[in-house]
Amino acid sequence: MTIKVAVAGASGYAGGEILRLLCGHPRTLAGELEIGALTAGSNAGTRLGDLHRNLFPLADRILEETTPEVLAGHDVVFLGLPHGQSAAIADALPPSTLIVDCGADFRLEDADEWTTYYGGEHAGTWPYGMPELPGNREIVAGATRIAVPGCYPTVSILTLLPALLAGLVEPTVTIVAMSGTSGAGRSPKVNLLAAEVLGSVRAYGVGGTHRHTPEITQALSRAADMPVAVSFTPVLVPTTRGILATCTARTSASIDEFRVAYEKAYDGEAFVNLLPQGEFPETGSVLGTNMVSIGLSVDERSGTFVAIGAVDNLTKGTGGAAVQSMNLALGWGEGEGLPIVGVAP
Amino acid sequence: MTIKVAVAGASGYAGGEILRLLCGHPRTLAGELEIGALTAGSNAGTRLGDLHRNLFPLADRILEETTPEVLAGHDVVFLGLPHGQSAAIADALPPSTLIVDCGADFRLEDADEWTTYYGGEHAGTWPYGMPELPGNREIVAGATRIAVPGCYPTVSILTLLPALLAGLVEPTVTIVAMSGTSGAGRSPKVNLLAAEVLGSVRAYGVGGTHRHTPEITQALSRAADMPVAVSFTPVLVPTTRGILATCTARTSASIDEFRVAYEKAYDGEAFVNLLPQGEFPETGSVLGTNMVSIGLSVDERSGTFVAIGAVDNLTKGTGGAAVQSMNLALGWGEGEGLPIVGVAP
Amino acid sequence: MTIKVAVAGASGYAGGEILRLLCGHPRTLAGELEIGALTAGSNAGTRLGDLHRNLFPLADRILEETTPEVLAGHDVVFLGLPHGQSAAIADALPPSTLIVDCGADFRLEDADEWTTYYGGEHAGTWPYGMPELPGNREIVAGATRIAVPGCYPTVSILTLLPALLAGLVEPTVTIVAMSGTSGAGRSPKVNLLAAEVLGSVRAYGVGGTHRHTPEITQALSRAADMPVAVSFTPVLVPTTRGILATCTARTSASIDEFRVAYEKAYDGEAFVNLLPQGEFPETGSVLGTNMVSIGLSVDERSGTFVAIGAVDNLTKGTGGAAVQSMNLALGWGEGEGLPIVGVAP
Amino acid sequence: MTIKVAVAGASGYAGGEILRLLCGHPRTLAGELEIGALTAGSNAGTRLGDLHRNLFPLADRILEETTPEVLAGHDVVFLGLPHGQSAAIADALPPSTLIVDCGADFRLEDADEWTTYYGGEHAGTWPYGMPELPGNREIVAGATRIAVPGCYPTVSILTLLPALLAGLVEPTVTIVAMSGTSGAGRSPKVNLLAAEVLGSVRAYGVGGTHRHTPEITQALSRAADMPVAVSFTPVLVPTTRGILATCTARTSASIDEFRVAYEKAYDGEAFVNLLPQGEFPETGSVLGTNMVSIGLSVDERSGTFVAIGAVDNLTKGTGGAAVQSMNLALGWGEGEGLPIVGVAP
Repeated sequence: MTIKVAVAGASGYAGGEILRLLCGHPRTLAGELEIGALTAGSNAGTRLGDLHRNLFPLADRILEETTPEVLAGHDVVFLGLPHGQSAAIADALPPSTLIVDCGADFRLEDADEWTTYYGGEHAGTWPYGMPELPGNREIVAGATRIAVPGCYPTVSILTLLPALLAGLVEPTVTIVAMSGTSGAGRSPKVNLLAAEVLGSVRAYGVGGTHRHTPEITQALSRAADMPVAVSFTPVLVPTTRGILATCTARTSASIDEFRVAYEKAYDGEAFVNLLPQGEFPETGSVLGTNMVSIGLSVDERSGTFVAIGAVDNLTKGTGGAAVQSMNLALGWGEGEGLPIVGVAP
Repeated sequence: MTIKVAVAGASGYAGGEILRLLCGHPRTLAGELEIGALTAGSNAGTRLGDLHRNLFPLADRILEETTPEVLAGHDVVFLGLPHGQSAAIADALPPSTLIVDCGADFRLEDADEWTTYYGGEHAGTWPYGMPELPGNREIVAGATRIAVPGCYPTVSILTLLPALLAGLVEPTVTIVAMSGTSGAGRSPKVNLLAAEVLGSVRAYGVGGTHRHTPEITQALSRAADMPVAVSFTPVLVPTTRGILATCTARTSASIDEFRVAYEKAYDGEAFVNLLPQGEFPETGSVLGTNMVSIGLSVDERSGTFVAIGAVDNLTKGTGGAAVQSMNLALGWGEGEGLPIVGVAP
Repeated sequence: MTIKVAVAGASGYAGGEILRLLCGHPRTLAGELEIGALTAGSNAGTRLGDLHRNLFPLADRILEETTPEVLAGHDVVFLGLPHGQSAAIADALPPSTLIVDCGADFRLEDADEWTTYYGGEHAGTWPYGMPELPGNREIVAGATRIAVPGCYPTVSILTLLPALLAGLVEPTVTIVAMSGTSGAGRSPKVNLLAAEVLGSVRAYGVGGTHRHTPEITQALSRAADMPVAVSFTPVLVPTTRGILATCTARTSASIDEFRVAYEKAYDGEAFVNLLPQGEFPETGSVLGTNMVSIGLSVDERSGTFVAIGAVDNLTKGTGGAAVQSMNLALGWGEGEGLPIVGVAP
Repeated sequence: MTIKVAVAGASGYAGGEILRLLCGHPRTLAGELEIGALTAGSNAGTRLGDLHRNLFPLADRILEETTPEVLAGHDVVFLGLPHGQSAAIADALPPSTLIVDCGADFRLEDADEWTTYYGGEHAGTWPYGMPELPGNREIVAGATRIAVPGCYPTVSILTLLPALLAGLVEPTVTIVAMSGTSGAGRSPKVNLLAAEVLGSVRAYGVGGTHRHTPEITQALSRAADMPVAVSFTPVLVPTTRGILATCTARTSASIDEFRVAYEKAYDGEAFVNLLPQGEFPETGSVLGTNMVSIGLSVDERSGTFVAIGAVDNLTKGTGGAAVQSMNLALGWGEGEGLPIVGVAP
């Protein structure tokens, strides 16, 4: 049987990354996965090769309009749409269609938080496509609707999770996360122009205002089984891809206790790399991969635990997690088609 | 009278920046400041234009060896040497010679801290060349020995100082500071190669091990008049210059209280720019200047104060502070020759 | 007497660079130059500090609309407008007002070339603001209307000029010029987003279609006193500023003949730096300066002359040349306020 | 049967890239290819994960010394050594061992050219691992000694080859090629430090002195069946990977003639992408792939043909070509394990 896959929002970076991964997926090469409709909004009618010049095998595909009719008849539909547009599409497709949403619409459980951070009405909550969370792998495997985590939440949660699960830190965490600019999407804005970004480092969404804050808080509070206060500061750096999350919390535990907790939490996880003691990750080493690479430290003088996590925001942070969730939901090998060796240097 | 200035360690980035500023200094243009001996270690004998290709007016100067004999006969001697080498030079020069040391040797007051972080014996403590600290301007103005602050400390201290002076935050601060790679100096190392740095973001010196940690702690503890616990994490980003410091501390004060404290602390300071509420700095806007640009925020949900500061690590972070100190000590206008408009974009 | 200066198009990169230079101009510091009206199109009404975050001294200025009324009453008006808009403004201002146009409208002498490359009707020809051209310094000094050269033409012409003046190369030249993205202006376009530009190098305007081609051809043909065929290929590289022009032409002359010709042509030119034999420039060394730095080579095996020139496209390539022209036209020192030491590294 | 593969010089960028590709090679995943000894010079004894932090699956491998004894017993040996060291290793291994040399030692046919450009004595000539050259695929397929082409030659030759094969241009070509800094290797040098490279563009090896010049000349002269004069200028740009070659030659042919020639020459070539007329490549779109992407143009005003080619210097430019050659020589599918979708943006 051939699984037919559509990508809605194929002109954006999330859509492009999903297509990059699907092109190299072993099921595609074996003829078991077929890349079907590719849709867009204002870019409908455009040749894909004019938008994603790296997708050589799909260069002559023409983007169609994002409508339920075009997306019907596919086994899997990936959504890479601006927030607020996923529900209408999902409602119009059969419940049996596997829908993997890279947008924010179905990530939050608390309707008030949704309204506070995104405005408008909450569309609902779908299974959260982060199989590394306790108990979550089975939920994703059985789902036909999956909400792919945000890029900052992916690295922030996975870098802090075991510390909170094991109760080794105070429930107040400070996360400063530096991201390449592909995370800001492909809409042309002056402050994302290369001339503004190159040679400069800029904080934005300071003071808890970034929309990924409640998503991080939700997952960490569940892990800690108590409310966790999250100070989250995103920073834009001059790279295309990659997020480095610097996570700090007060602790009286030893580094050995942390290592035990992390090794236990991530035992057998194919996409989490725990670095040897004293080493810390860089985003360059995970470029193009579905990996999260983590380094741990305890600063006894200031009484703090410092964990550093690195991720490719477009792969594990978006498109890779989407494909990982698809693999699980289709009963395929979870890691199929997901690179684990970075394109470095 | 003409002031004759020497630069020891002229082949490095600190020395080069001092020369850049001296070339454009109005006293140089007026013939009142003369650039005398330029010295180096292994680069002695080299044409300056082969090392600092931006210093067109000095391109044909030949570097001499760094010895007391070569440096003698100058009114001002800037030192840009590896740590541990400044004391011997200083001891061999007359007490009346103004020595401005860009190295770390004379910054710390606590000899044990020196030994812990740098090894070997503490050389002593010189007036700290940060005129913006309470009471410090007068001390610097009257000194003939000045220790230029480190680059990370400059931006970290100035970004947090008023909050601690006013007692508005708990005495536990988290600083995550992203730096361009010129801060790591000019020695060739594999991990500083462009191929390793470009497209990547990397934390280093994690867990309180970076040598600038005790320097930050010293200044902030004095401001708070109590011990301040500092969690400091430096991050290397792919820019040549610039540090962005993200500083977080728990607070119950309001943003208005912080603004009052910062406006009071920096009233009349020519090199501190307090951004309007809701705006935050980027390193690009201070490129080549002696400015520190600061934005403030209170995140009420997590109970934290977040201040962001940006500085050019080579200008205000090193060479600019050195010239600022020289200006003060010579009785010239403090801001002479110090750019306040960034080279942007 | 105080000279009052307006900048029309102050929100763009050319306008911002002129303001950067005017802020540091000695006549401004002495109170002899006053920065008057700053105007914009869609950005009228905006605080300058929100657009050019590096212009700290002017941060609270509010942009006005670009109209003749607002610009009236100034001694000098700089124009940094999209092409086609300068003539109407110029016509509405008195002939005695010094107008320095950073746009393309008045650079070309041949009306057909204008129509071919820009479309529409030719507005006329103004004195060309490149004082380094033979006989041009006097023309600029006596003008009240000046057309600032394009950025690619500036570096291409100055890098090749002496070779053509001396008749040392065949009149067919190949120029490949790599530019930072500030040269493409500040309008938000997808292909100028940092995520598209970083880590990538891209040719554009290939095959003689770039609008700067006829401007280069015009100047080189005049220098050679015969038609010169110019193959010009611009390349976009991931830097904010800087153009490196690689210029090649067939020759049977020796490197010594070229050096004699270049030294003679640029004798006494403050803004042209001829590197020692065997050295070649990089854009980083001229960052923020009004310099053109040039290296020469003869490849005897292939029978070619290769000259490499570097320039900051926003300074000598636009705003610096504009201020240089203003200085000349006002009878001030030609180099006043124009940096000659690069911000490097 | 399992093919056992060794990599000598595994600590460098070429060795690292070969390992990246071998990790994802389908024969590795199927257990038919085994990664055996990994060797180095001064890095012998080091954990691979400390040198290539992207190679997660091989992180705990320890580098051995590069000796014939360590390399014996492997079916395939990749060499990524400084030039001059390959012959001794090759002589000590059995003739049946497939040796794929990423160095320059066996690329040139003319011993005098070798001595002129590299010094010392010529070691010999091996089959040239560029299957896209006429008649070369069969030679590589039958070889046990293969010389991998240089990175600049790969893109230069493939971008110009059909024009010269078809006799459409004069036999004098100008190539200006911009490269990321990984092409300069991993030895720490001041001029390759990020602080020197970022924000700057620099020509080097100007005037026909770069060692890749005779290699380009050799291939193009053979294609043209007459001596071709090559003016080659390499330029260093601030990216990690990627070369963009701008190739110019005088012509009186039409663009249609060129398109016919290129389509014929590259018909069926999996790794050559000919862009639609009017489009030109960027290095970002081929990042991490074995592709060469080419755009064509004729500038009728200047009478020149301009072809632009893009390649990833470490993949198709080194490690990818090495694996492609191995695939051919082992009778495997030529494209196995070689990415054709770029990691973009």
